[in-house]
Amino acid sequence: MNKRKAFTLGEIVRRCGGELIGDPALKIARVAALDSATAADLSFVAQARYLPQIENSAAAAFILHADARDATTRPRIVCANPYAYYAIVADLLNPATPAKAGIAKTAVVAKTARVAKSAEIAANACIGAGARIGAGVIIGPGSVVGANSRIGAGSRLYPNVTVYHGCRIGERCIVHAGAVIGADGFGIAKDGGVWRKIPQTGGVSIGDDVEIGANTTIDRGALDDTVIGNGVKLDNQIQIAHNVSIGDHTAIAACAGIAGSAKIGRNCALGGASMIYGHITIADNISVSAGTLVMKSLDEPGTYTGVYPFSDHKRWLKNATHLRQLDELVRRVRDLETRLGKTEKKPT
Amino acid sequence: MNKRKAFTLGEIVRRCGGELIGDPALKIARVAALDSATAADLSFVAQARYLPQIENSAAAAFILHADARDATTRPRIVCANPYAYYAIVADLLNPATPAKAGIAKTAVVAKTARVAKSAEIAANACIGAGARIGAGVIIGPGSVVGANSRIGAGSRLYPNVTVYHGCRIGERCIVHAGAVIGADGFGIAKDGGVWRKIPQTGGVSIGDDVEIGANTTIDRGALDDTVIGNGVKLDNQIQIAHNVSIGDHTAIAACAGIAGSAKIGRNCALGGASMIYGHITIADNISVSAGTLVMKSLDEPGTYTGVYPFSDHKRWLKNATHLRQLDELVRRVRDLETRLGKTEKKPT
Amino acid sequence: MNKRKAFTLGEIVRRCGGELIGDPALKIARVAALDSATAADLSFVAQARYLPQIENSAAAAFILHADARDATTRPRIVCANPYAYYAIVADLLNPATPAKAGIAKTAVVAKTARVAKSAEIAANACIGAGARIGAGVIIGPGSVVGANSRIGAGSRLYPNVTVYHGCRIGERCIVHAGAVIGADGFGIAKDGGVWRKIPQTGGVSIGDDVEIGANTTIDRGALDDTVIGNGVKLDNQIQIAHNVSIGDHTAIAACAGIAGSAKIGRNCALGGASMIYGHITIADNISVSAGTLVMKSLDEPGTYTGVYPFSDHKRWLKNATHLRQLDELVRRVRDLETRLGKTEKKPT
Repeated sequence: MNKRKAFTLGEIVRRCGGELIGDPALKIARVAALDSATAADLSFVAQARYLPQIENSAAAAFILHADARDATTRPRIVCANPYAYYAIVADLLNPATPAKAGIAKTAVVAKTARVAKSAEIAANACIGAGARIGAGVIIGPGSVVGANSRIGAGSRLYPNVTVYHGCRIGERCIVHAGAVIGADGFGIAKDGGVWRKIPQTGGVSIGDDVEIGANTTIDRGALDDTVIGNGVKLDNQIQIAHNVSIGDHTAIAACAGIAGSAKIGRNCALGGASMIYGHITIADNISVSAGTLVMKSLDEPGTYTGVYPFSDHKRWLKNATHLRQLDELVRRVRDLETRLGKTEKKPT
Repeated sequence: MNKRKAFTLGEIVRRCGGELIGDPALKIARVAALDSATAADLSFVAQARYLPQIENSAAAAFILHADARDATTRPRIVCANPYAYYAIVADLLNPATPAKAGIAKTAVVAKTARVAKSAEIAANACIGAGARIGAGVIIGPGSVVGANSRIGAGSRLYPNVTVYHGCRIGERCIVHAGAVIGADGFGIAKDGGVWRKIPQTGGVSIGDDVEIGANTTIDRGALDDTVIGNGVKLDNQIQIAHNVSIGDHTAIAACAGIAGSAKIGRNCALGGASMIYGHITIADNISVSAGTLVMKSLDEPGTYTGVYPFSDHKRWLKNATHLRQLDELVRRVRDLETRLGKTEKKPT
Repeated sequence: MNKRKAFTLGEIVRRCGGELIGDPALKIARVAALDSATAADLSFVAQARYLPQIENSAAAAFILHADARDATTRPRIVCANPYAYYAIVADLLNPATPAKAGIAKTAVVAKTARVAKSAEIAANACIGAGARIGAGVIIGPGSVVGANSRIGAGSRLYPNVTVYHGCRIGERCIVHAGAVIGADGFGIAKDGGVWRKIPQTGGVSIGDDVEIGANTTIDRGALDDTVIGNGVKLDNQIQIAHNVSIGDHTAIAACAGIAGSAKIGRNCALGGASMIYGHITIADNISVSAGTLVMKSLDEPGTYTGVYPFSDHKRWLKNATHLRQLDELVRRVRDLETRLGKTEKKPT
């Protein structure tokens, strides 16, 4: 649980930058949304369209973009990126809980595991043989770290996370409850009428500053590793199949799925429930809209979409059935064009 | 595990209502489907189209709608809502297991947690500092309740559930295994080329009589709470993002996802794998079909659908490619209309 | 964790079959992909299009199809199904870790549970009353087996798996971390404005040689069992609702969902994120493409698809809006056909 500290506006600007207009001694205990802020709170406007709501907000002060410096007469911090500034101040006021160094009595740590003295191994956690737990790491209650896996300094596993054997998580990573790192990839070979399991002998390699959402799954590689770059942010219930690689600073929203051996570039943004085929390559700086299934490689930066536009059910029913005859409709239009062309040429 | 009790038809009608036609002394041990019922079972017909199956059913007695009171000569209970009646009788015959009061030896309960004497804290469960566990609550094996969270009287957490700190679950709720309540919302702000995490300082507030399916995730709010109303029923593997609110008695089927800050009304029904965009509002009494992605607010009650109609793969391939030229096709039809209009006007 | 053994090519062929061309004394420690293999590795070519990569591979030897026996002069094993052969050799070189017989001190096993002597019950696992754990079974850390459930000989539950009460898992099954077997099906009945829960009194019955992916959920039946056949392979984050049945040797990719009471045949292949409606029947030998929602029963073997073809966002926007007027477009084309027909008949 985060404990909130109070800071004056002056201290905030000294630590986080920006230009302060107003009383530097004003104390701020909390960052709050415009409509729920109280007179002790700092609020923010990240998009110009919310500026009109300032006057109805009870907030004591605001974080504003330089273009909006005069949007209020109340105290304000003016900066280039109010949303990022809000993130920084919120972090200042709500610092992450540090590890309480030590191993809980009910935790089970293999003799050959190496756990940093400053790490916290919570109740009922299990650390396997040969595993290495870095400085300041928190392993939450019920979480399991498999044999020979490594958790880098400053990382946190929330409760009931499972990391299989032979996986590597970098520094300052956050893994939310129920996530599973390193389960076997879905490797099966048909042999006669029966599926044979293919042993998954690769691992998972996760960079630094990665966040992994609740119940997200990242499978181990079949032969080589599944690789997640630095600064990658993964929301909840995402499925990353074996041998996928994801470039640095790519963000993926909840319920997305990436099939085996797909390569996702850097700085990509995949929307919620988007699905990426296996064995394709998505270049850097590509956005995929929510609910879109990408079936082939994308080379050009840009935004890609493929979503059936919803409507009321009756209208959908009336329209959707024609999709199954769209090829026929195109043929009919082509036929009309030919026939009309002939008719037009007729002498009158 | 439920233990079945036996009741006579007379006792059932006395407790659950309805009109009994037939022997009140007949003993019923089980409710069963029409086709698998034995001569000791009570079956039911919830939809008229299943009435013809009565005669082939071995059931001893039936729950029938008033309109179907004469569909059989066997003993029967006649009522207004046979499906709800079935639910009530099934609950009578299979009462939920009550809590076995006490804290298992291997459970870890913080000193400052307050656990009702009648609550059951099962093996390897963890209860954090300041948490409050109400009367008759069952916390399953391996489940974790974070600091200062509250679980209301009569609620049950199945095994390996994680409730983060500062969350509130109402009374008589059921949370299935692997569910994660209160993980951080997906709040990130781009700052230069890097994502900054935005601390998620809100909580999760869940009403009474809510059921939450296995591996479903409900994120904590960024600043304010994520709110789930009373009587809401959530199936498995649903993702509820930060600051979503869901109105009372809304039911959501498996694999659905609701993006951040969406407001879902009361008495809505969201189909399996339906996806709701962030920051939109779905009014009361709206149904969304399975697999439908809703991209904008819906004000009018009704059913909304947006699903690509499947067909055999070759046919799909032939038709789908034209979708990418649909705008061009519309233009061609418009052009044909113009040209044909001119042709029709020509003197012959 | 798997421990690799080394074998000579001669030993491999003696155990696994195939024709060896080259030195039988050559030692192989690892199977590797063409591009990452070293001079100590055996690689394989499962599809002819990868044959040109052989010459650039550093592998010591290859597994090749009979048609490609002369694709290299290096040592090679020639066989009818190189991918299955790879699976068999990989299993030989990376045998599954056997159970370390015994019950961990921190595990909690009910007195009435029957655990085979050769089974391994890992740290913090819980085995409920009346449960039966077969010979050589591994129950991973934090996993929970409910009352009266049975785990067949040779099966393995990875960490933090939950099996509810009264479920049956066959022999040689693998259940990955976070999977939940036997949670209540989503059975609710509207009664007035409120949902009543319908007790789910069926169980889950899983055959032999089944693999279940991480965070996959299989619900218990409402009255009868949910049934998974022999040799079924389920990837991660799949949702199987109550009373579904899945035929032998069907494989389902990640993020798929199968709604209540659907019957899936034998030898089917359901793609990632495919969704199957409730109460329908999919015949044997049917493939459903990734991302496809199947709304009605399928009788004919074949491949079925229904995916909106993605494009760049602007193009999608231009085209997708017309879908809502497709019925109108069809009407306009029909009208053009009628009018043009009349025009063509006019005497000139």
